[in-house]
Amino acid sequence: MGLIVQKFGGSSVADAEGMKRVAARIVATKKAGHQVVVVVSAMGDTTDELIELANAVTPIPQGRELDMLLTAGERISMAVLAMAINNLGFEALSFTGSQAGVITDSVHGKARIIDVTPGRIREAIDSGAIAIVAGFQGISQDTKDITTLGRGGSDTTAVALAAALDADVCEIYTDVDGVFSADPRVVPAARKLTTVTYEEMLELAAAGAKVLHLRCVEYARRYNLPIHVRSSFSPNEGTWVVENHPDGGTMEQAIISGVAHDKSEAKITVVGVPDRTGIAARIFQAIADNDINVDMIVQNVSAAATGLTDISFTVSKAEGQKATGVLQRIQGEVGFASLIYDDTIGKLSLVGAGMRSHPGVTATFFAAMADSGVNIEMISTSEIRISIIVKEADLERAAKAAHTAFGLDADQIEAVVYGGTGR
Amino acid sequence: MGLIVQKFGGSSVADAEGMKRVAARIVATKKAGHQVVVVVSAMGDTTDELIELANAVTPIPQGRELDMLLTAGERISMAVLAMAINNLGFEALSFTGSQAGVITDSVHGKARIIDVTPGRIREAIDSGAIAIVAGFQGISQDTKDITTLGRGGSDTTAVALAAALDADVCEIYTDVDGVFSADPRVVPAARKLTTVTYEEMLELAAAGAKVLHLRCVEYARRYNLPIHVRSSFSPNEGTWVVENHPDGGTMEQAIISGVAHDKSEAKITVVGVPDRTGIAARIFQAIADNDINVDMIVQNVSAAATGLTDISFTVSKAEGQKATGVLQRIQGEVGFASLIYDDTIGKLSLVGAGMRSHPGVTATFFAAMADSGVNIEMISTSEIRISIIVKEADLERAAKAAHTAFGLDADQIEAVVYGGTGR
Repeated sequence: MGLIVQKFGGSSVADAEGMKRVAARIVATKKAGHQVVVVVSAMGDTTDELIELANAVTPIPQGRELDMLLTAGERISMAVLAMAINNLGFEALSFTGSQAGVITDSVHGKARIIDVTPGRIREAIDSGAIAIVAGFQGISQDTKDITTLGRGGSDTTAVALAAALDADVCEIYTDVDGVFSADPRVVPAARKLTTVTYEEMLELAAAGAKVLHLRCVEYARRYNLPIHVRSSFSPNEGTWVVENHPDGGTMEQAIISGVAHDKSEAKITVVGVPDRTGIAARIFQAIADNDINVDMIVQNVSAAATGLTDISFTVSKAEGQKATGVLQRIQGEVGFASLIYDDTIGKLSLVGAGMRSHPGVTATFFAAMADSGVNIEMISTSEIRISIIVKEADLERAAKAAHTAFGLDADQIEAVVYGGTGR
Repeated sequence: MGLIVQKFGGSSVADAEGMKRVAARIVATKKAGHQVVVVVSAMGDTTDELIELANAVTPIPQGRELDMLLTAGERISMAVLAMAINNLGFEALSFTGSQAGVITDSVHGKARIIDVTPGRIREAIDSGAIAIVAGFQGISQDTKDITTLGRGGSDTTAVALAAALDADVCEIYTDVDGVFSADPRVVPAARKLTTVTYEEMLELAAAGAKVLHLRCVEYARRYNLPIHVRSSFSPNEGTWVVENHPDGGTMEQAIISGVAHDKSEAKITVVGVPDRTGIAARIFQAIADNDINVDMIVQNVSAAATGLTDISFTVSKAEGQKATGVLQRIQGEVGFASLIYDDTIGKLSLVGAGMRSHPGVTATFFAAMADSGVNIEMISTSEIRISIIVKEADLERAAKAAHTAFGLDADQIEAVVYGGTGR
């Protein structure tokens, strides 16, 4: 008997039938003897519909009021889910983020969790009930206003609650079978991973894999809380996100766990930048001051004759226009020649903890790209990740080539690489 | 400059256009120099849709969860209304019942307000903002669970908040122009009343007039808080509900203020009841023990020969089946002969503070009924009300006849009876 936190997304509870199916799944876990806490998102398209309603009365909804509005979505789904469970003869009690003790800062629309004080949840499950908690929402410590956690907020709620309750596992239910070695829509030979480490998952998420959000994985790593990503449509085991691969150093370990691709970025090149100390800092300070996140940066070797250099960096396409605007405003001060904006690029990343002990990864990777005729425009690396920027048109070909080059294709591998986790 | 609480119902804020119109109305009050607190209901049919959703997963939704679900409706409308006001350049902050300090008992679905501690509302309006409060909802003192106030709950929220804030007036906006001397759909000659007393309004509400609910009028009377019932579609004065008619005893006062009718009751006759002490008490105790409200009661004179009597009473049609079930279970113990259930009756009531000083009202009323060929089945009176039960088919004819008999028809009256209130 353990304590299990389960998170169901909006597509799993899109209608009454989905609610009943999820309720049955929750009850099965309860019947197996576990204490169960469920985190649920708003039903189907509810959040989008509420945003549309807001936009019908104002082009710029205030953050406080928008959070008040959007949190109605989870309030509806959690109450209906509790009813559906009650209808199966099991006691279920629903709680808002505030009631569940999810305390946040006051940044409406993307609040961060400061503390979780789940006294009422503990009381509910200790009394034998199933606790249903609204995902995505909290209450601000200072103003006592309702807040929302931003994208992927319900996953973060689930992991934060699981950590605060010292749960045995946080199960994230989704419409895929788990975390894959690549996006199966792009790389048909992609396989479901049995295990990934927090570190790998963080790199995969940062590199564009959409299964789990960065924040929830960070949270899980900080508390060493196992996450089990699995399908809400099948009883099969999914992917465990844990501290270490269970085979440790004893068994053969794959060098690369996964290949991620990302089409959401654009490349900005600042041409003819005076190659003086402090100039690059000035450019990126201006970008940061406007809350724009920079991903990859490359600075060319300065041409000795001119004393000028080019600096390229990538930002989210959504922030591309804002970034070029910022740069235009400091053009006189910085003294660069011109800007080039390119939103037809793609990012390909290889992630794997095994990279640390296998120095040849970069060579293998670049050879595979060359063999496929893919030109590499930018490169960035971390301890367990290599990312490259290529033409968007080359991205899918590049992903398939890398997947094959590292022996990740399903027919290259015996069933599972790492073996079961034993959990 | 004063403090005005305004309440808008669901039909006034059914869509974005309605929201904008109501926002403009609120802003106009603010511009006139008043502090404004607004209580708002769920948009249009939202509450019905949420109930439908609940019924799609369970035939018997738990009260706690149903309240959690339904309160999402006001959360949506209050946030959208706040946005619409913000969009006009005025600051508006929305508050849930809990945030507004509406403390209730724990009876889900029909909680009663125990206390109102509107600290955050006071703070908001003192800072110059317009406060928008969710109607119909509160938080239970004991369990800290979300509760709803039941039918007419938003009116009660508005009056309770107005009392706690010591507001100058509570304006209840509706889709009619005010309180009428009769339902204009039934009595076309009905007139809008300029003033009614709390006492009259209570009797009218109890007698089936639907404009204001009993509980909100009771609340207003207890705190001597003026209610102004008016149309959300016109700027005209509506009806003031106050302690006394402004002309007091000095001007000619109408004997009858209004005629109310009600088709929601059914008549149950218990036939052949042994006429012994305690038997009637036993019957009505059993009814009360099952939370069934009895309205009118008539006991026939006992037939000396048999020692048996008949007892008739009315209950809401919705509780008719439950009531007959209760009686069948005690038939053996009480020893009555049979039950007659009649749900084709109607209740007609005359209400007026002037009745106290005009003893001839009953005679005039009954004569009007006789002249119209309406048979009276039951009679009950209070100090300022006379109610009769007639055949449902006779009800509308009876209402028109009574309205005319007491000189209430629009063409019988010079514009207004009581004159303005001077407020």
